Amino acid sequence: MSASNSHALSYVHDEEHDLRVPVTEIRLNDSPGGVPNPPLQVYRTAGPGSDPLVGLPPTRADWIAARGDVEHYPGRERDLLDDGRSAVRRGEASQEWKGPRPVPVRAKTGRTVTQMHYARAGIITQEMRFVALRENCDVELVRSEVAAGRAIIPANVNHPESEPMIIGNSFLVKINANIGNSAVTSSIVEEVDKMRWATRWGADTVMDLSTGEDIHTTREWIIRNSPVPIGTVPIYQALEKVAGQADALTWEIFRDTVIEQCEQGVDYMTIHAGVLLRYVPLTAERLTGIVSRGGSIMAGWCLAHHEENFLYTHFDELCEIFARYDVAFSLGDGLRPGSIADANDAAQYAELDTLAELTTRAWAHDVQVMVEGPGHIPIHRVRENVERQQKLCHGAPFYTLGPLVTDIAPGYDHITSAIGATEIARHGTAMLCYVTPKEHLGLPNRDDVKTGVITYKIAAHAADIAKGHPGAVERDDALSKARFEFRWRDQFALSLDPDTAEQFHDETLPAEPAKTAHFCSMCGPKFCSMRISQDIRTRFGDAADQAAVAGMQHMSDQFRAAGSTVYLNAPTVPALEDVAGHESIGAETGGVPT
Amino acid sequence: MSASNSHALSYVHDEEHDLRVPVTEIRLNDSPGGVPNPPLQVYRTAGPGSDPLVGLPPTRADWIAARGDVEHYPGRERDLLDDGRSAVRRGEASQEWKGPRPVPVRAKTGRTVTQMHYARAGIITQEMRFVALRENCDVELVRSEVAAGRAIIPANVNHPESEPMIIGNSFLVKINANIGNSAVTSSIVEEVDKMRWATRWGADTVMDLSTGEDIHTTREWIIRNSPVPIGTVPIYQALEKVAGQADALTWEIFRDTVIEQCEQGVDYMTIHAGVLLRYVPLTAERLTGIVSRGGSIMAGWCLAHHEENFLYTHFDELCEIFARYDVAFSLGDGLRPGSIADANDAAQYAELDTLAELTTRAWAHDVQVMVEGPGHIPIHRVRENVERQQKLCHGAPFYTLGPLVTDIAPGYDHITSAIGATEIARHGTAMLCYVTPKEHLGLPNRDDVKTGVITYKIAAHAADIAKGHPGAVERDDALSKARFEFRWRDQFALSLDPDTAEQFHDETLPAEPAKTAHFCSMCGPKFCSMRISQDIRTRFGDAADQAAVAGMQHMSDQFRAAGSTVYLNAPTVPALEDVAGHESIGAETGGVPT
Repeated sequence: MSASNSHALSYVHDEEHDLRVPVTEIRLNDSPGGVPNPPLQVYRTAGPGSDPLVGLPPTRADWIAARGDVEHYPGRERDLLDDGRSAVRRGEASQEWKGPRPVPVRAKTGRTVTQMHYARAGIITQEMRFVALRENCDVELVRSEVAAGRAIIPANVNHPESEPMIIGNSFLVKINANIGNSAVTSSIVEEVDKMRWATRWGADTVMDLSTGEDIHTTREWIIRNSPVPIGTVPIYQALEKVAGQADALTWEIFRDTVIEQCEQGVDYMTIHAGVLLRYVPLTAERLTGIVSRGGSIMAGWCLAHHEENFLYTHFDELCEIFARYDVAFSLGDGLRPGSIADANDAAQYAELDTLAELTTRAWAHDVQVMVEGPGHIPIHRVRENVERQQKLCHGAPFYTLGPLVTDIAPGYDHITSAIGATEIARHGTAMLCYVTPKEHLGLPNRDDVKTGVITYKIAAHAADIAKGHPGAVERDDALSKARFEFRWRDQFALSLDPDTAEQFHDETLPAEPAKTAHFCSMCGPKFCSMRISQDIRTRFGDAADQAAVAGMQHMSDQFRAAGSTVYLNAPTVPALEDVAGHESIGAETGGVPT
Repeated sequence: MSASNSHALSYVHDEEHDLRVPVTEIRLNDSPGGVPNPPLQVYRTAGPGSDPLVGLPPTRADWIAARGDVEHYPGRERDLLDDGRSAVRRGEASQEWKGPRPVPVRAKTGRTVTQMHYARAGIITQEMRFVALRENCDVELVRSEVAAGRAIIPANVNHPESEPMIIGNSFLVKINANIGNSAVTSSIVEEVDKMRWATRWGADTVMDLSTGEDIHTTREWIIRNSPVPIGTVPIYQALEKVAGQADALTWEIFRDTVIEQCEQGVDYMTIHAGVLLRYVPLTAERLTGIVSRGGSIMAGWCLAHHEENFLYTHFDELCEIFARYDVAFSLGDGLRPGSIADANDAAQYAELDTLAELTTRAWAHDVQVMVEGPGHIPIHRVRENVERQQKLCHGAPFYTLGPLVTDIAPGYDHITSAIGATEIARHGTAMLCYVTPKEHLGLPNRDDVKTGVITYKIAAHAADIAKGHPGAVERDDALSKARFEFRWRDQFALSLDPDTAEQFHDETLPAEPAKTAHFCSMCGPKFCSMRISQDIRTRFGDAADQAAVAGMQHMSDQFRAAGSTVYLNAPTVPALEDVAGHESIGAETGGVPT
């Protein structure tokens, strides 16, 4: 049986408010001596699971309706061009969504339906209660942080299937995974599978960055099946609608695309409104110019028309639209550095100044905002990025890509970026966009997506520990205890990737009994210090105790004299036992490559 | 042809002192327009290469002899038990080394032959000159740092095949890779191959942690073929000699094993002399007790005999031995934490106090010292480890294993530890011991060894950049320039792992022309902002220029007013072109997992 079989879907309940939050329960075996270990409940992003052809139940629909501030309406007329020119030629989209499709809703005229609006009005929503249960915190913290703009709950009223989650410096660090087809198209079912795969391993949000055919229909399938918020970069679809000619883009085409996506239920959208005409020349002397796709599209448009970025000039109209659906801004950093040589330069910081201005403007409409960040930054210059953003943007959540701390490791950029991601998250970044091993080189496959997600869960978790998030170390301690007690199956079950942990173990010691073997697979019985410790107990128990007690008394006096607060008990046997996985400089890795 | 074919063995010469230092030269293609790019010379750990059956030439033999302070002598009598009990049964070791075996040398009576001794006497050795060429620094910096104990040059006089390298906070951060057979034995040839494999990818030193059969002979093969310093943990072999009974260990058996290894040419040895009897009870309340193999062996011995650690009581005798061969101490941290819960605790810091005392004692004998460190530490508590060690140990080089910043990712601990390794290295750790994906789970295979080495090169390089090491960013800038100019082959060649970079690229765009294709493999031509930029130039060149100039003028005034030093040229086309590998939040990873 696989260690992941120790994982079960469970729920945390709030009977009073008729709420239940899915969690993953990890069942554990007893410690030696039959001492039971309680199951560990961990944050779950995979949701309850769904039939891809049917989608998830619209859990939030009742909550939204109960507030009485939205109206159902026919919605924008379907345009086959939404699915690309080949759909127009065919006269239909491929694989049209057949499952239940909620009738679009929007705020009644004059109403605002954003979580920020409610929070500022002092209203505690079901979404906020759901989040508080997930984060194991006071709901008032949720409300006040959302009201202040320091946290967002991306929750489009047209995505009632989603489970509310929160992005903010006061909460668990979140991670995003990207999916989406491209010029090289993949089937819609594959895209849905990728979304489910990413959330299974821990993606808190998913961005659909499709740029190929069937963009509209692919997004429909993804949203209807997604338990996590979905983000997009609408300029990509808008560009498809003008045959890829950046200069042919217009505000009207873009607005229409945004409304199309608002009605489908996109929860947050990347808007490159900070790429101003006058900033483009600041990239002239860069080593790597403009590396943001959306940034280069808008820079091209600005220069082509010699006009200011229409996303900037029409920003307030965008706010009015977002306010009617509760879509959150993800203010894109189109001028982010594409190499450590360009880090923290004039272009990057000029754009950040504008993103700060736009943050305030969006807040004036009660629209939720997060701000995107780099990119490529040497480790010693990472911290200033988040501190500067937090200061200029009045604490609006920061959402960064990495950053990569060196440019010399293509093929390993999930690692170069996880190093920077941990550093920037511990100092206040609220969400990290994952990077896969294929970054800079090609298209990630299923394994790459998993590797990217797990790597970023590590970075986010390391930051949660550094920030002292309540309960952050529970899983670490449970796993280390299992390791110390040679409960191999529990070690696997408690790890971020039980399948890989078990597989690696079995490569060395496949035999089933080894799962409970009381020596370390790396060193063999002779070199297992647990076994050595057991010998000590067997053959020298009394002497050991005497020695220990004597030594203890000595140290005890010494440490008390030194004012140490460490209290010294007589050593119990476990104190002398070793754990699986010795770490004398490299004992473990001194094995036999075969 | 593979991108790694762009790598060639070359040399940096010091004609005056008849020195040549192997470097790896990376040949580059011209930039667009035929502008040539000079080849980049990078630090090389692989040496000149050798026939495993013959070994490397004893380059340093003449240098050592020329100093006139060593004597040749018969050496310790060969004991078959050095190769384990089965060798004794067989009456011979398997695969006895047949290549040239240098006659052992040691310091003449009353002489000291350590690099520290020479440095303190103001003598500039060939080893120091070699190091200065490698590090591209002043040789006086090398001498003064070695004299002060802030850096070491591990260079046993019986390992004349090694290329001198330096470990210290003022120099490039180094990494160590572990090899060695174990209870599950591997062939000697496999071990030699692993050493060559590790140094090919960048291991600065290699530790042979063999614990199985043929330990002596395996080590002989490795040392005779190794261009990098070799480290060991002699207590492992000593324990083999007493059939694995820790309590049967004696100082005499250990001393004999140390001399055996000194004569073979081991350059540094891990000595767990800081595990004192009175410290053992301090581990009583730990979550994971003692996780160091050597630490648990010595703790077991201390308790079994109720005596002080014989490595501590005989430390000065060890110094006298090391001084005659120039073997460096790697003072083992046998009480390092094995989980983040045990980080920075009383046991760990008590042992560090003793390691500091031992450092001073070794220096009194002119013996070189580095100090080993943890282990498992939450990211926010990493820095205090290196700062405390540097202060207590008067700047003696710190040599750490990771540290891992979380315990929940077995199977990915090369990543959890690389995050901590970057943090501890940027604050002063001189050498990092790699961790492979198999850490805590099993024996690393060839791929794991490569992954561990590359991952740690990333951590070390990121720290070198943070520390502002001269020339550290040259490779980053060269690669980013190649990326910006779509010189795919140069991108591969400049990366730490050209083979993987090229393979990942080819998975998406295998066609040979794609290697020079001027669009990004991730997005297809339509979404390549370089292509968009080219369209801008073609169709709106004048407008673009006008817009750019206008915008430039505006920003120019604005930024001059703001006192900015950024000087703004009219944007050249490259300034508007995009580079391979867009990083709009995740554009690149929005591909098709297939």
